[in-house]
Amino acid sequence: MKNEERELKHVVAQDYETGEVLMLAHMDEEALRLSIETGKAHYWSRSRGKLWRKGEVSGNEQIIKDILIDCDEDTVLLKVKQIGGACHTGYRSCFYRELNGKIVGEKVFDPEEKYGKKGDK
Amino acid sequence: MKNEERELKHVVAQDYETGEVLMLAHMDEEALRLSIETGKAHYWSRSRGKLWRKGEVSGNEQIIKDILIDCDEDTVLLKVKQIGGACHTGYRSCFYRELNGKIVGEKVFDPEEKYGKKGDK
Repeated sequence: MKNEERELKHVVAQDYETGEVLMLAHMDEEALRLSIETGKAHYWSRSRGKLWRKGEVSGNEQIIKDILIDCDEDTVLLKVKQIGGACHTGYRSCFYRELNGKIVGEKVFDPEEKYGKKGDK
Repeated sequence: MKNEERELKHVVAQDYETGEVLMLAHMDEEALRLSIETGKAHYWSRSRGKLWRKGEVSGNEQIIKDILIDCDEDTVLLKVKQIGGACHTGYRSCFYRELNGKIVGEKVFDPEEKYGKKGDK
């Protein structure tokens, strides 16, 4: 199934302790089922067209503490314990910049060391 | 322009003080520009195919305190002072339920009183 034929929910991942918003991703039905069953965040990658487990390469897993659903049931809020950093660039959160480019986030790992030069997530 | 021809960013709105995630919405370029210019959150409604200012009917405005952009620049994090409730159902946040339907959020207004029976946002 292509992305457009797949029913995807938006997913906001949030640090369950600090409230920091970590990333925005998507889940198909299988990713949601696996997330619930394993307690670890699984997503559907729209760019790569495949299911992935957050941290499967980097070890930067998300341990799920709570799952909430929004009013129109197209967005999931995942409260997680984030191991390492959420962002493939090495920052704790994907929201590490202001609109003008000023960096305000915290870099917590070296992406080349984690992923090699390929930049796999 | 239809939704699919319009470059939309996901927008996560978060209470700037408590960190509570309030809603997930979308912005086109004009909504982002108006949000920056006025300091009040404007969105593109995919279901209604039009620009809207949050709170234009209900008065439940979002006063923008900070705007962050994510690594791949397709999602905006809006830190806001939420007047009243963010959700058109009357809850403070759109994420007021667990997956099993159990309500965990706080109801802060009566939607019929705010919107009439039409349920406009």
